Amino acid sequence: MPYVNIRITREGATAAQKAELISGVTKLLQDVLGKNPATTFVIIDEVDTDNWGIAGESVTVLRAALAR
Amino acid sequence: MPYVNIRITREGATAAQKAELISGVTKLLQDVLGKNPATTFVIIDEVDTDNWGIAGESVTVLRAALAR
Amino acid sequence: MPYVNIRITREGATAAQKAELISGVTKLLQDVLGKNPATTFVIIDEVDTDNWGIAGESVTVLRAALAR
Amino acid sequence: MPYVNIRITREGATAAQKAELISGVTKLLQDVLGKNPATTFVIIDEVDTDNWGIAGESVTVLRAALAR
Amino acid sequence: MPYVNIRITREGATAAQKAELISGVTKLLQDVLGKNPATTFVIIDEVDTDNWGIAGESVTVLRAALAR
Amino acid sequence: MPYVNIRITREGATAAQKAELISGVTKLLQDVLGKNPATTFVIIDEVDTDNWGIAGESVTVLRAALAR
Repeated sequence: MPYVNIRITREGATAAQKAELISGVTKLLQDVLGKNPATTFVIIDEVDTDNWGIAGESVTVLRAALAR
Repeated sequence: MPYVNIRITREGATAAQKAELISGVTKLLQDVLGKNPATTFVIIDEVDTDNWGIAGESVTVLRAALAR
Repeated sequence: MPYVNIRITREGATAAQKAELISGVTKLLQDVLGKNPATTFVIIDEVDTDNWGIAGESVTVLRAALAR
Repeated sequence: MPYVNIRITREGATAAQKAELISGVTKLLQDVLGKNPATTFVIIDEVDTDNWGIAGESVTVLRAALAR
Repeated sequence: MPYVNIRITREGATAAQKAELISGVTKLLQDVLGKNPATTFVIIDEVDTDNWGIAGESVTVLRAALAR
Repeated sequence: MPYVNIRITREGATAAQKAELISGVTKLLQDVLGKNPATTFVIIDEVDTDNWGIAGESVTVLRAALAR
């Protein structure tokens, strides 16, 4: 019955990679806590880099600074 | 003062249906706990089916399997 | 497959009231969007009044001001 | 190490305004709790007005009523 | 920079199991998306069984029914 | 109408500090986006250090390592 919310920046994660996250997290919860995959929710939120801040700056700005 | 977050897959919920969820949840909280509708927030998130996993698979894959 | 998170202040909601919220929200999602109750999660978070702010003040402070 | 999630209606917040929110919240957590900006996450979610309800109605409907 | 929130019922997960979830999820995000563990947050919420509903009932009630 | 959720480790934040976060965030949203404090929610979650992971380890373990 776990609910897992994975939040990442919207930077090109493919459907295959998201499927891998879903199956990996579901298996981890089954292995560690014996949770039933049939009632394990995994929800992935992809967030625009303007909308994600770390160290007081948006990821957009941080990525641009790295690229210079 | 409740905050309610409803997360559903993005599969065509109409504005009218979302309005019905908003009014229904607000009324439920008023009836059960006497909460003031004026300060009751209801936020609906619609999530792509690639991004929602159950039983270790994405809803996209599960829907496709059902359709076969 | 909906996930519903209800956040309320920790002010004495009983197990019966929380059960009523759970069944009411589950029924609402079944009625409005045809969602399957068997895979509808409803999670209630109860938050201390020191930790909930509205109008720039904590609910603890607001309740005390109302009580004077 | 704080995680801050700011949810607002999608009504035209600019990249500059979002950057201001990110830096402002990060500074506030540093000033009040001494938190390290380098491991302070601020994530802004912008929600469609059909999907945000208050007083039992969607913001879309409320805005329209105000505009009449 | 991922943020992962794992919500489970409060049913005795040990510190060691929670550490295993934290390291497992962090490794999964590194392997699948190349995410930096140093800025990967994993937060585990444990929810009382009165406060977690599925199939319209609280887990407390469901567990009791199973135990009869 | 903003909803702000601040998640921090449970490490002794006082009621006064939490009040300062609530008023500071509310003022920031008013100043930057003109949001009405009367309908601005700020909710602070305090998370046990066993339940918060960064760099693949729990904060409990990281704090202990720093203390040695």
